[in-house]
This record gives sequence, structure tokens and C-alpha cells, in this order.
Amino acid sequence: MLGKFNIRTDLALEAKESFEEDNVEIRGVRIHETEDEENEIHTTRVVIETENGAKAMGKPVGNYITMEAPHMSVPDEDYHREISRALSGHLKKLLGGEEQSVLVVGLGNREVTPDALGPYVVNNVNITRHMIKEYGKASVGGGKVNQISALVPGVMAQTGMETLEIIRGVVEETHPAVIIAVDALAARSTRRLNRTIQITDTGINPGSGVGNHRNGINKEVLGVPVIAIGVPTVVDAATIVNDTMESLVETMDKDENIRNLGGALGTLSKSEKHQMIRELISPHLNTMFVTPKDIDETMKRISYTISEGINLALKLS
Amino acid sequence: MLGKFNIRTDLALEAKESFEEDNVEIRGVRIHETEDEENEIHTTRVVIETENGAKAMGKPVGNYITMEAPHMSVPDEDYHREISRALSGHLKKLLGGEEQSVLVVGLGNREVTPDALGPYVVNNVNITRHMIKEYGKASVGGGKVNQISALVPGVMAQTGMETLEIIRGVVEETHPAVIIAVDALAARSTRRLNRTIQITDTGINPGSGVGNHRNGINKEVLGVPVIAIGVPTVVDAATIVNDTMESLVETMDKDENIRNLGGALGTLSKSEKHQMIRELISPHLNTMFVTPKDIDETMKRISYTISEGINLALKLS
Amino acid sequence: MLGKFNIRTDLALEAKESFEEDNVEIRGVRIHETEDEENEIHTTRVVIETENGAKAMGKPVGNYITMEAPHMSVPDEDYHREISRALSGHLKKLLGGEEQSVLVVGLGNREVTPDALGPYVVNNVNITRHMIKEYGKASVGGGKVNQISALVPGVMAQTGMETLEIIRGVVEETHPAVIIAVDALAARSTRRLNRTIQITDTGINPGSGVGNHRNGINKEVLGVPVIAIGVPTVVDAATIVNDTMESLVETMDKDENIRNLGGALGTLSKSEKHQMIRELISPHLNTMFVTPKDIDETMKRISYTISEGINLALKLS
Amino acid sequence: MLGKFNIRTDLALEAKESFEEDNVEIRGVRIHETEDEENEIHTTRVVIETENGAKAMGKPVGNYITMEAPHMSVPDEDYHREISRALSGHLKKLLGGEEQSVLVVGLGNREVTPDALGPYVVNNVNITRHMIKEYGKASVGGGKVNQISALVPGVMAQTGMETLEIIRGVVEETHPAVIIAVDALAARSTRRLNRTIQITDTGINPGSGVGNHRNGINKEVLGVPVIAIGVPTVVDAATIVNDTMESLVETMDKDENIRNLGGALGTLSKSEKHQMIRELISPHLNTMFVTPKDIDETMKRISYTISEGINLALKLS
Repeated sequence: MLGKFNIRTDLALEAKESFEEDNVEIRGVRIHETEDEENEIHTTRVVIETENGAKAMGKPVGNYITMEAPHMSVPDEDYHREISRALSGHLKKLLGGEEQSVLVVGLGNREVTPDALGPYVVNNVNITRHMIKEYGKASVGGGKVNQISALVPGVMAQTGMETLEIIRGVVEETHPAVIIAVDALAARSTRRLNRTIQITDTGINPGSGVGNHRNGINKEVLGVPVIAIGVPTVVDAATIVNDTMESLVETMDKDENIRNLGGALGTLSKSEKHQMIRELISPHLNTMFVTPKDIDETMKRISYTISEGINLALKLS
Repeated sequence: MLGKFNIRTDLALEAKESFEEDNVEIRGVRIHETEDEENEIHTTRVVIETENGAKAMGKPVGNYITMEAPHMSVPDEDYHREISRALSGHLKKLLGGEEQSVLVVGLGNREVTPDALGPYVVNNVNITRHMIKEYGKASVGGGKVNQISALVPGVMAQTGMETLEIIRGVVEETHPAVIIAVDALAARSTRRLNRTIQITDTGINPGSGVGNHRNGINKEVLGVPVIAIGVPTVVDAATIVNDTMESLVETMDKDENIRNLGGALGTLSKSEKHQMIRELISPHLNTMFVTPKDIDETMKRISYTISEGINLALKLS
Repeated sequence: MLGKFNIRTDLALEAKESFEEDNVEIRGVRIHETEDEENEIHTTRVVIETENGAKAMGKPVGNYITMEAPHMSVPDEDYHREISRALSGHLKKLLGGEEQSVLVVGLGNREVTPDALGPYVVNNVNITRHMIKEYGKASVGGGKVNQISALVPGVMAQTGMETLEIIRGVVEETHPAVIIAVDALAARSTRRLNRTIQITDTGINPGSGVGNHRNGINKEVLGVPVIAIGVPTVVDAATIVNDTMESLVETMDKDENIRNLGGALGTLSKSEKHQMIRELISPHLNTMFVTPKDIDETMKRISYTISEGINLALKLS
Repeated sequence: MLGKFNIRTDLALEAKESFEEDNVEIRGVRIHETEDEENEIHTTRVVIETENGAKAMGKPVGNYITMEAPHMSVPDEDYHREISRALSGHLKKLLGGEEQSVLVVGLGNREVTPDALGPYVVNNVNITRHMIKEYGKASVGGGKVNQISALVPGVMAQTGMETLEIIRGVVEETHPAVIIAVDALAARSTRRLNRTIQITDTGINPGSGVGNHRNGINKEVLGVPVIAIGVPTVVDAATIVNDTMESLVETMDKDENIRNLGGALGTLSKSEKHQMIRELISPHLNTMFVTPKDIDETMKRISYTISEGINLALKLS
């Protein structure tokens, strides 16, 4: 039954929670949580271990690390430095410590503020490949160094090409050993917007769906590992309607005049209600997103935090 | 009863419709519609004639012209030229044909795509004031010419100042005879997004509310007439929830299992439902907006169409 | 002797003039000039016919069309439309009239104003490839249509990759039939800045030099024809020093006190003087460019004129 | 004689050097130099004490602190933090330690890269005025806090208004106690480009000239003290021509064939040569500037360094 609902979230953490709400247990999925109380960073590691787990979660087998930091969109430079450091720690483990060539890809649309995370991050990544190739390692400080290149492929309306076509072409020409792809995500809960970073070694897999990684930006398609860093910056229209419905149901239980109403809706599971709402909302709402009014300030801060995390992780000596 | 609901729309047209839906008649408000079939531009003129009408509509006494052009966000240069021409016709009537100094103000936030309409429009307005002051009229072609200046005041998070403080300061220093203020608006219906232009001689009156024009960008506050040009580019969160509720009610009538539900909600008027939903949605949703995913393309096109309309209207000879 | 001087200009027209000044005739190079008096567009076609001509000119065999329009950087929409039309005429001849897939490449650096021509032009090109691929020709109007895609590869400091690597990768993935590459050029004369468009079927050949097209963006390297559109927006430091020296020499002849000086310099040919100056200026000046202070306004206008020319040329029916 | 030459530099340090080169002593001007060897920051304090000194220097009476840091345009975050700290130290002394309202003005043109320093800096300044006014001091951390606002007035071609008109209007409306104005400067030596910060308590005084502060952004005009922070990002065309002439003269002394030439030019003083060249270069060169090709990277780094310096200086507790 679950399979038939398309739970629209890019966060593995939320996919997991959605099962918990419906009291469904999933085999093949392991979870581990840690709390950095000093820095108020809550980290959840979701490991999808089997194809079964992947099927249930609607996400490929792999590691999904979620850092939740409530003040991430607030201006506090010291706090942001801590997040950058934690992010760099996770990246370093996934990258290994060897010298290698790394292509950082900034996905999304530079011209639409909440979708500009990738391009903004790339803007502040330290690029070294051209220096090393032309002047040797000494030109970037010497010692153990990564060859870092970067790409902002743009979106289809701007290029007429699939993002994947552009990336694949560039990968075939420049042969990076690993890709770090940065993208803005959609969350299911407004509560997580702009305060969560997901790091995964499974790449970017649009539409999710097990067994269909053909259009993903991942190792299967590109031949090199893809580490994806994502921050939920928008919420689906269906999500906020759903949140309201939840409140409605709760209110109804308390209000005598409309208690019947609560009864009828109360028999639906959370996913069913979400799905029902999705069917009700007019089709053109699917082309719309919800985002905070101060998204410009938020994007500036978070993109800087992430690029610092990447720069720290890629500095070997 | 109606007065107590804050129907969140910047469009006079929608305020009017909201009464019609509830079968309420308003005195002191006149409406006139015309259809340009060849160019598919539907024009509605709402005239609020009395303080009574103003109170009911939640908007000041004055003229509100709404041009609805379904293909406004579609790329078709010839069609956009027609819209520019129609807009310039309306502006010319409001401006009169005399030489004067005109300050074009681009309101909104350049860094948040759907709020960048004002700044984008100002980008393409032909500025002449400095040329005329320094080199005389001949420098801008001679004949009858307007002295055109422009201002992009930014938003409070960027400046720490009220938009009004900045505009008032500039007006007091440079003494324009009239202001044209361009702003992105919030609509109540997603149907009107990016396909409607409202022109009004009442300026910009945030929060609306009769008798409280103190914070408005209008003649009362600034001492010079303010013509406002607005395009709805975002919708309130409450609006899309409301739209879904409507669909829900309709569906329920057809679905036996949940007919009771429809009955309960059916007794509420449209505004009551809207208000109820507004109360239910969590407070932080009020800091969120809904906008189409291709808003970047749309803003580029519409802002150009409007700046061309302004340029045409301000060219006297 | 001439061969040893690296006359730094991207304009074939200026390379030609430089020989004329030294009274040198070049075989294998043909020139044809036309004047559109009504629109004040002066067009020069330089045809390099032989390898000998190519060697002398420091540019590959092929066609070089130069449109000089004195008011190109001035705001006059009607005039710009005429230039767009003339440009589109030249492009159409080079493209042929058949349906094909065209990749428009915007070279240069979006973040440095006078180098942003390419990225700015691509911003306004009508992209159709993704629409045709997904929804068929009817989605873009039907009839005979080109599949248009676009790429802004960025510069090496931003990507760590050669521009050529990125373009080659994308070409190999998406197989365009022809490339239109738009780039800002360096001129030798400040007189030509921002009022000249060069169209050539030889692509972009940095550093020029016959027999060394390996790093060019041209048919030899990419396997598809490359039409290049360029506008000189900067001048080399050496150029303006040279211009001043010229004036100095002329002044000296008239001024008794320093006539000796004129005598000594007067024995040098123009290219020799230019070369001498090039050797004298400090090496870090080679990393500098000269450009007008109002380059932002100019770039906005010219890039729009060129994108309109491209759009007209690529619209088949 | 010196007075008649318009030595085009915005740096007091360079004005001083120009006298030293010609072995002229100036009364009423004091100089003090310090070296921070660890951080490689060379600081020069020029104090113009009398109207006589002001006349000779072409700059108003006041303090001019110049920080020269050779690696300022190089990417090294730690090094930049040291510069920010040193800058903040100088600012703190000029600002005093009291709570006050500070208006930060970002002068220049956001759309022309080397002129965008002011707008870029403002982008990263922590704005607090609106928060304090609306929610009290606690909203920005409490304790002793400055009310910080910011303005990017744009340039005349964009606004049709004098920068001064806009600033004066805003100052009269919002009554800041002090202004910090940030601007890109013109240097006379390419050697100082993008590695020098000048801090002065005399404001911005275009065209210099003693006794003519009417168009300046200074205390005389605005009624509040103006601290100006400037970085030379461009050089005048005349300057690079002059540098080449210098090399030419030196070369000539060594080269027998053209020794005569050296003799003739050798009799001119440095300022005379500079002036002669200025007269020779064609008038339209005065509308041109010279700047490094990697100016985009440089501007990003330096603007961030300065905004951090301002943020540190304005944080009282």
C-alpha cells in the first residue's frame, strides 16, 4: 500500500519518519542518532542496507547523514563555523584522505533564489585544478592537494539540455575521481526548511524510485562516486495544505459543531490524507513551491557555510 | 461581519469578486469591463467612489485598472508589445500630457526572484533627469521631455530603514511632480499570477485599511501623486490551502463515505472558510509565499513589458 | 619582419589595416566594403583565401564580416533593431536555411562587465531543444524549427577547466550540427570599442597563429562548424600607450624644443613602435585591460541587439 | 607650478609621494609609518594639518590612514582576518566607543565590476536599525549596540540623481550620527591596485580641490562626520602611459641609437611628463579606466574583508 503514495521529500530522514507515523517498520534500514549539545547539532544517520529497504524508502541503498541545526539560517558566524566543521568531517570520511581530482557541481537555477544553493556554493569553492595543471602543486601551497574543478550546469529552460548531459560530457572530458553535487531540496515539513543538511553517498536521484537510477546523477550513470549535499529550501504546496488539514482535524475534535468532520477524516492515515490532498489540489499547483520571505538572507548564509565545509574537507595538508 | 476578515489580496478586482461570491453588494464602488479580443486583454476598471466603498473594499478611494492577459508570461514579443502599448495608454491618461519630472520607484527585493519586479523594471527605464540638468533638453532628443529619475530603495533587512523613509528623503531633495511605483503583489487566486497588471492612482497602501494611509506610499504621505503599477507574482499560503478546501468540499458531496464532512463545511461562507484556514495554519506560514517554479523567466518578460510601457508613456514627443 | 610582431587584435579588419599603414600588400586576402547609408552601418568583408594570407594576417583561412555602427552603444531601439536585422542576415547565410540543432555558446566571464557579452547574450536567446525533444515541434510553434541549446562555460578561474574541455564534452553528448560562439574581443583601436560586430566562420582562435588551431573553438577541434560573433569591448594596455606615442611623435615635429625626439622615433614603423612599447610596459600590465566607464549600459544594449539578431536568424518559419 | 597639475589620485599617500619625487617639501603635512611585520601590513598615517597643506595636497585637512597589504587580493582567509582586524582597529578609534546610529553607504556602480566595491561591502554588513527600532536592543543581542543602516545610492546613469541628493535626503529622514562611506578609488600606480585600503575622516571629496567641498560627501555638506574607506581598484589611462614613458626614458639612456630622445624627455619633471601625456592622450581616454583581468575574484575577497572589518568595529559588546 505504501508504494502507491509518492511521499514527496528529498530527505531520507523524513521518508523514515513517515513510516514511523503510520507505525510501519521497515527492514533493511538502520538509524543512528547523535546529539552535539554544545553546538546544538542533531545528527541522524540513515543507512539503507538492502534493496527491500530501498524499495520501502523510495531511495537507493546507501548512507544518508542529516545534520539538523536550528540556528543555521540565523546570522552567527561562530555557530556557522561549527556547522562547516561538522560537515567537513562527514565529507572527509566519504572522500577518503587521498589526493584526487574532485568535481563540485552546483545544481539548480541561479536566477530563482531558493533554487540557487548549488550555484552560490560553487561561487565560494576554492578551485585548484587549472593552477596545478599549469604551474604544479606548489602553486596552490604544495604538499598533498586535491585537483578541484567546478561546474554550474544551469537548468533546462536556460540550456535546452538535460543537466545530466552536461555533467556527463564534462566528466568524460576531465575524468574527476569523485563528484560532490550540491542542490536545494524539497522537504515535507516546513519545520526543517533551511536548518537541515543532508549528505549522502548515493548522489542525486530525482523522482526516487528503486531500480530507476538512469536519470540520476550517481555512480551508476556517471561511473564515478557522487556525494550529494542538500538543504531543503522549499516545501511542496501539498505539504502546507496537509499541515493545515492536520490542524483542522485536531480543531474539529474539540469543536462540537464540526466534530463529524473530524470523525470522517480521522479514519485516514497520515499518508492517505496527504495523498488525498495531493489529488485535490489543482494540477498547476504542482508547478509551485513554498518558501520563506527572507530566503535571500538564508541562502547567502547557508551557501557560505557549505562552501566553507567543502573547502575544509578538500584541504588535505 | 465582512470587515473583520482580512482578505489578503492586493488586487481591487479580487476584493470585489470576494464580495460577489458572498452575494454582498457594495455601494460606492463602480465597475466597468472591456475586452480587447484581438489582443486577448481583458480590462476591468474598479472605481471606489466613497469612503463607504473604501471601507468595504479595504482600499482607498480611487481608480483601479486591471489588465488581464493570459499569455503575459509566455514568450511572444509581439504580444508583449501590445500589452506595453495598452499599459502606456492607461499611464498617459493618469499622467496628463505635460512635461514634468517623474520619479520611478522600484519596490521590492532584488534578491528574491518573485519580489524583484520593481528593481527589474527600473533597470530598463530610460533615465533622463541628469542629462537634461547637465546638458539641456537637446541631449535627450529635444522637444517636450519628461525629467525621469529612478530609485530602488531595497527592503528593510538590507537597509535597516523603512522604504518610506528613503523615498520621502529623496522626494524632499529632488521634488518630482509625480511618482510611478512598481511592485510585486500578492494575489488571492493562483489563476491571476503573472498574467495581471493593476494600475492605480492611489499609490501603495500596505495592510490596506481605510483611514490608515500613514505608512502608504501615496499622495497623503509624500505630497505628490503616486501611480502604482503592480503584478501579482506570489500567493499567500492561506490561499492555496483554501483552494484545496474548496475542492475538498466539492469532492465530498460526490463521495458517500465522507459526505458528512461536506455538510459541515458547506455552511461556511467563502470568506469564513478562508479565515478559518488562516487561523489554523501555523504562524510561521505567514512568513512564506507560494510562487511558480519558472518565476525567473516570467519576471524577465513581464518586467521588460512594463518598463517598455513606462518608457512609451513618458516619451512625450 | 612583420611576422615577429604579435599585433594584438581579434579583429581581422584591424590586422588588415595594420599592413596598410606599413604599406605592405598581402596576397591571398580579399576585401569588400559596403555602406548602408540609411542605417549608418559600414560593412567590411575580409576573405582570407590562402594559407599564405592566413600566415600574414595571423588568422585562419575563412570569412570575416565586420559591421561598424557608430551608434551601437547609444540607446535607440529602432536603430538597434536595424543592426539585429543586418546581423541576422549575415548569420542566415552562414547557417543555411535547413532545420538543424544549434548550440549557442556564451564565452567570457559573467562577473567582469566587459567580458560578460557572451553570458548576457545567451540570457536572451530563445531556447527550444528541450521543448522539441519533450513535446515535439508543435510546442514551439511548429513548421520548420531549429533545436536551440545554449551553454555558458565560465572561465578557468571559476571552473578549473579549460573552456574547450567543457564545450567538447557537451558537444560530444548533445551532437549539435553547428555552434554559434559569442565572445567579447580585444581591439587595437579605442575608436572601434563597442561599435563593431565581427562575424566569422572560422570560430574562436585564441593567440591566433597559423597552423596552431589545437586550442581553438573551431571545426578542426570540435568536428562541427563554429560561427563566432564578437564585439571589441576592451583594448590592450599597449594600445593606448601606443596611441599616445603617436600623438607624442606628431607633437614633437611641431615643437622645436623636443624635435630631436620626434626624429629618433620617426624612423620606426608603426608596428615597431607598438612592439617597442609592448616590451617597455611592465609585465603585470599584460594582465590589465582598458574599458569605458559606462561599459554596463553598453553591454546591456549590445548584448540585447546580438541576441535579437541570433533569435531572428534561428527562426526559420 | 605644481598646483597647476591635476595629479589624479584618490590616495593621500600617492599625493605625498608625488611631491617627494619632485623633491618638494610640504609644510602642514605630517607622516607616520608603522610596519606589522608578522602580518605584512604597512601602515602610513598622513595628517594634513593646515589649509596650506591641504592646498598643496589637493585634499582636505584631516587624517588619512593607508594600509598596504601585498597579499590582500590573494585567497588566504587567515590573512584576510588580520586585515579585517587592523581595519576595525582604525575605525573604532575614529568612531569612538559610544552607542550610536551609523549609516553605511556603498558608493559606486554595482554593474561595473571594479566600481562595485561599495555595493558589495554593504551586502555583508550586519544591519540592525530596523530590529532595534521594532523589537528593542535584545533582538540583536542586547548590551551596547549600534543602530546600523545601509544605503546603495547607485550612479547617476541609473538614477538620474546626484549621489549626494539621495544621501542627503536619507540622512535628513533618518538622522544617523555618523556615516561610513565605502568606495572604489583610482590610484596613480598600478602597484597599489587592490592591495591598499585608505581610511579617512574627511569623507569623499571628488575632484579634490581645496575650498570646494560643496559636492563632497562630508561633514560640511551633510552635517554629520563621514568616515571614508576606499580601495584603489582602477588606474587612470594617463597613468599607465606615464609608467611606460618612464621605462622608455630609462631604456633610452642605455641605447645608443636613441639616446638623444632620453635627453629631451629627461629634462622634464615627473609631474610635467605626466601632465604632458595627459594632454596628448585623446579626450575619450578620460572616460576609460584600466583594471586587472581577475578583478572579479579580487573584488569578492576585498569587499568581504572590509565588511568584516566594519562589522567588527560596529560590534560594541
